[in-house]
Amino acid sequence: MDIQLIAIFVAPATALTALIYGIYLTKKVIREKEGEMKLVHIGKAVSDGAMAYLSQQFKVVTVFIAVLSILIALTLGVGISVTFLLGAIFSAIIGYFGMWIAVKANIRTANNALLGLNPALRTAFSAGTVNGMLVVGLGLLGVSLIYLWSYFTFISTGVDMVAKQATNVLVGYGFGAALLALFMRVGGGIFTKAADVGADLVGKVEKGIPEDDPRNPAVIADIVGDNVGDCAGMAADVFESYALTIVAAMILGGTMFGLKGVVFPLLARSGAILTSIFGTFFVKAKSDSENPINPLIRGFVISAVSAIIIFMVLAIYLLGEPRAGYAAVCGIIAMLALLYVTKYYTGPGEKSVVKAATAAKTGAGTNIIIGLSTGMESTFVSVVIVALTIYAGYLFLGFYGISLAGMGMLATTGIIMSLDTFGPIADNAQGMVEMAGLKGKAPSVTASLDAVGNTTKALTKGFAVGSAAVAASSLFATYFEATGLSSIDIANPKVFVGLLIGGALPFLFSSRLIGSVGRAAFEVVEEVRRQFREIKGIMEGKKLPDYSKAVAIVTAASQKELVIPAIMVVVLPIISSLLGAQALGGFLGGVVVVGLMLAFFMCNTGGAWDNAKKYIEDGNFGGKGSDTHKAAVVGDTVGDPLKDTSGPALNPMMKIVQIVALLIAPFVISLIGK
Amino acid sequence: MDIQLIAIFVAPATALTALIYGIYLTKKVIREKEGEMKLVHIGKAVSDGAMAYLSQQFKVVTVFIAVLSILIALTLGVGISVTFLLGAIFSAIIGYFGMWIAVKANIRTANNALLGLNPALRTAFSAGTVNGMLVVGLGLLGVSLIYLWSYFTFISTGVDMVAKQATNVLVGYGFGAALLALFMRVGGGIFTKAADVGADLVGKVEKGIPEDDPRNPAVIADIVGDNVGDCAGMAADVFESYALTIVAAMILGGTMFGLKGVVFPLLARSGAILTSIFGTFFVKAKSDSENPINPLIRGFVISAVSAIIIFMVLAIYLLGEPRAGYAAVCGIIAMLALLYVTKYYTGPGEKSVVKAATAAKTGAGTNIIIGLSTGMESTFVSVVIVALTIYAGYLFLGFYGISLAGMGMLATTGIIMSLDTFGPIADNAQGMVEMAGLKGKAPSVTASLDAVGNTTKALTKGFAVGSAAVAASSLFATYFEATGLSSIDIANPKVFVGLLIGGALPFLFSSRLIGSVGRAAFEVVEEVRRQFREIKGIMEGKKLPDYSKAVAIVTAASQKELVIPAIMVVVLPIISSLLGAQALGGFLGGVVVVGLMLAFFMCNTGGAWDNAKKYIEDGNFGGKGSDTHKAAVVGDTVGDPLKDTSGPALNPMMKIVQIVALLIAPFVISLIGK
Repeated sequence: MDIQLIAIFVAPATALTALIYGIYLTKKVIREKEGEMKLVHIGKAVSDGAMAYLSQQFKVVTVFIAVLSILIALTLGVGISVTFLLGAIFSAIIGYFGMWIAVKANIRTANNALLGLNPALRTAFSAGTVNGMLVVGLGLLGVSLIYLWSYFTFISTGVDMVAKQATNVLVGYGFGAALLALFMRVGGGIFTKAADVGADLVGKVEKGIPEDDPRNPAVIADIVGDNVGDCAGMAADVFESYALTIVAAMILGGTMFGLKGVVFPLLARSGAILTSIFGTFFVKAKSDSENPINPLIRGFVISAVSAIIIFMVLAIYLLGEPRAGYAAVCGIIAMLALLYVTKYYTGPGEKSVVKAATAAKTGAGTNIIIGLSTGMESTFVSVVIVALTIYAGYLFLGFYGISLAGMGMLATTGIIMSLDTFGPIADNAQGMVEMAGLKGKAPSVTASLDAVGNTTKALTKGFAVGSAAVAASSLFATYFEATGLSSIDIANPKVFVGLLIGGALPFLFSSRLIGSVGRAAFEVVEEVRRQFREIKGIMEGKKLPDYSKAVAIVTAASQKELVIPAIMVVVLPIISSLLGAQALGGFLGGVVVVGLMLAFFMCNTGGAWDNAKKYIEDGNFGGKGSDTHKAAVVGDTVGDPLKDTSGPALNPMMKIVQIVALLIAPFVISLIGK
Repeated sequence: MDIQLIAIFVAPATALTALIYGIYLTKKVIREKEGEMKLVHIGKAVSDGAMAYLSQQFKVVTVFIAVLSILIALTLGVGISVTFLLGAIFSAIIGYFGMWIAVKANIRTANNALLGLNPALRTAFSAGTVNGMLVVGLGLLGVSLIYLWSYFTFISTGVDMVAKQATNVLVGYGFGAALLALFMRVGGGIFTKAADVGADLVGKVEKGIPEDDPRNPAVIADIVGDNVGDCAGMAADVFESYALTIVAAMILGGTMFGLKGVVFPLLARSGAILTSIFGTFFVKAKSDSENPINPLIRGFVISAVSAIIIFMVLAIYLLGEPRAGYAAVCGIIAMLALLYVTKYYTGPGEKSVVKAATAAKTGAGTNIIIGLSTGMESTFVSVVIVALTIYAGYLFLGFYGISLAGMGMLATTGIIMSLDTFGPIADNAQGMVEMAGLKGKAPSVTASLDAVGNTTKALTKGFAVGSAAVAASSLFATYFEATGLSSIDIANPKVFVGLLIGGALPFLFSSRLIGSVGRAAFEVVEEVRRQFREIKGIMEGKKLPDYSKAVAIVTAASQKELVIPAIMVVVLPIISSLLGAQALGGFLGGVVVVGLMLAFFMCNTGGAWDNAKKYIEDGNFGGKGSDTHKAAVVGDTVGDPLKDTSGPALNPMMKIVQIVALLIAPFVISLIGK
């Protein structure tokens, strides 16, 4: 049988398998009991808030996407507009359902914690896996559909659409996905931190009530925020990197190896999806006393090792080129290295984190300084890993090798996304156990799950940044080909100027987002104060606060604050393009290089402060309420908008800027020149 | 008369004029009275400490420089070794005397404050001007000597040394100057902040005694630190940028315009020195009630405007090319813009600063977050100014235009250095007035001088970073020419990898320096605690602590902590060069782009926090001792190592890395290839 036909069947079949497995797990999670009334009430409030946010977000986004898709259809053609819509819709579905299942799983995990470790772990991890399966399933399905379309066009018209339309497909599909990812990352990032800071400033600081206290009018907004920011945004973002790297690999593979080069990425990714599913079967605690991190690591290692085997086998027997396998394996190793580095510098109880916690003994200032130093060092190490990965891929097979290294980095996306979503679910389950006052095994089970969630969250942040960087680098190569430039020469002052301005953009973008959190949090503070003032009996627990108000306020604020960053990422490339296509290339280089560094820096520094605070809360250096703890809380407050808003938002930002450049490149070349 | 001969006479004559003016001012300052015994004692302790530090630093540096100069003589020739020594010695002289005069002026300014505003202002500003004259005088003298040497070589042998040896001279002279600047910036930066933090942590926090209290065993180290860090380091650093830009302009000018192009920078700089001297005559307060910022601004504006006139006149009548004048004027305007931007974002009482101070009402976390957001925005704006300056210079006259823009940026160096040194002198004078308990007019006079010093310090930091960036860009162009590369193409993965690793270096470097401050401060804390414990009667004021111990500890620690950063800036370019000369070019681009951003970011963010704290200390939001103040103190503590250690140290670091690359470039080309 023809290898092309195999790919046509295998790739969509695997994608559907992943989706069906996701649906199966969804049903399993939903079948779990929600538990007692108090828990159900809390769950409903969170669920309502989350859905209110999403429907508001989608209203804004739908208008935006509709207008853009018409514009694209008119200027660039219907084909690219269709792929644009496909990317946007898939990304939206992932954001929506990923968050929906997380919200459902929070409460069920809390309730299952009454039964023991395994039931709670399975529920949280299964819901996480739904998210993972959505990302990889839709990621592969979209690409398969585009491949199918180009195959049948070829059969009926003889035009090789893959080669001809490759860049357009990349631009369209990638643009749609990236735009949604940007909206979710930015909107969700502002939402979660504004709610968090707003709730804490009035509740904890002014009123002296504990975290997650039901008397706080912003408490539900806070929990909703965790789902909005950590689940929806991350999934859409990784989906986009996942889609971009495979499309880039197919384009470059086609150029180098013809059909086999196109099919190899499709089949390799199919194989990697199956290994991810395979890995999830091993996530089971051997006993209630086992540390829940162990089964998670077992599952992950099994899927990584099987992915390596599949890549090598396909490279040797399908492509006849072992170096393609080596390049992909470099990517897998790089991903492992990034996970390790992130854990080493920011993981709970790690040396650097304990150092930051120790520094909190002499005050918030020293705690923050040590965290900054740690974050900067980790940035260097992480960037070097990304650089070496790119170089290794290049050594093996040129640009194709780089894109394969990128595919390798994302090979275990399925299980990594499961681990990542697991974090906020465990976190919220613990919050709900506290709010509902569940007894028995529940508190200790959710506490141990939450501790593991902190580790997995710390781990996966580096993965998202690293894979976004490699995806952006692939796009950078595409820009180079699309413009037909002979070089992007930084010794040319125009290009150097572009490099400088591009490098400065991530600073402006981050500055704006950090400011947005402050402004939105301020609105929450005003509202929470108003409720405490006007609704009598809240503090005595006689009357419930109006949770939906705070949710509505952060929802509106996060949509409003989206506008200026969105304008920035479109307008600045256009301004830079006035210096010509080469200068625009320099601009792109600047955005990727500095964006990557700032993203690592903000995520890792914030992560280190967060876990330093948690280390103290675990009873070290005086524990909760001590002066050392108060100092560490300051560090955590500073880190929050960095690690949960501006840092992660840089990922889709880097990619969007690249795509905008690709879109305007033909006009730049014809109007301004190279 | 031959234009070449004019330059041969005029340039050294102007340089000597500046130096003689400096000596005249030195004598004037020294002639002022030191005042009462208590003041004299404090002054002597500070002076002893400062000199102890410098002699220790020079011991280390001398060995290092001696070994290097022999190595350079053996591998690259005696000529380059001589220019290397010249650069190092001049830089050392500037650091040494600049600090020496500052130490002498502190106490005399304090004493003159008893007499009124003008005597105190004149003393502080005169001492600052000594520093300024040293920088510009030696800066021009060194280049004039090299020019003289090449002129006579040409007459006697017929070999055009300027063209032939240009790069070597640049490398030798620049390397010597940059190395000293790095040592002073890094050593001084660690010294000043370790002493500051160490003194505060035990004195203010543990013992509850006020700042600048003579009972604190680290108080003298703290005051010494201000001189070491702010005066010596800054002067050596700016001297190097000053020297680099003129050499670059002479080389490029020679290529484009022949002899006239070489002479033009020499004469333009001579003219600018005279305008700086001219400007200093206008720094006189009209009355005791005039805000001291006004005479400083008068002096500065007069020297800037006259510099513009001189540049234009020389460009039109000497060079016959008005565009050379335009390029230089762009640089002057850029410098003004940078001063303005730095003031706008970080100056005392400015909107952004008040915003950060207001945020301190809700705690240290929000204060720090707002500061970060401000610092990031200011980074974007500052980088865009630098980028536009480079582009404007390029539009006017290509690479020569860029170097002229750099010369324009540094045209008012004389008076800017005066303003910059004025800051720490005023600061320390105020500290001494407090320690010695001077009465009468003194406290109010030094308080108003100190307030102005805060403004000038805020202003001049952006100047140092911006001029270092332009100097580094000039070197970058030289690297390109020296290697004979046809391009440094970031679309080439090797170059992109170089760009990434180069961009990551400033993060590693800063991380290390921030950590150094922490380690050195820890040693101070231990010593201060020991003295309080073992020397009975300190707290009661019966016995004086042993000030020299703390000074000795920070001196030793700052020398020890120099080693690893120094190794980094040499080893990382060498490692990157393994990918070839183009990749090394990418590495350099990364270092400059990211180094520039981080330098602006750290200096401006730190400056904003500092002045936010001072705004509260001026009686706003509850003033000193309030919770808001305590929150702002945390921000200031975090900013200290950023704005006074790692941020400023990035300037010489960027330049050294470029020079190391130039040094190894021939070997890279022959051993590894392009």
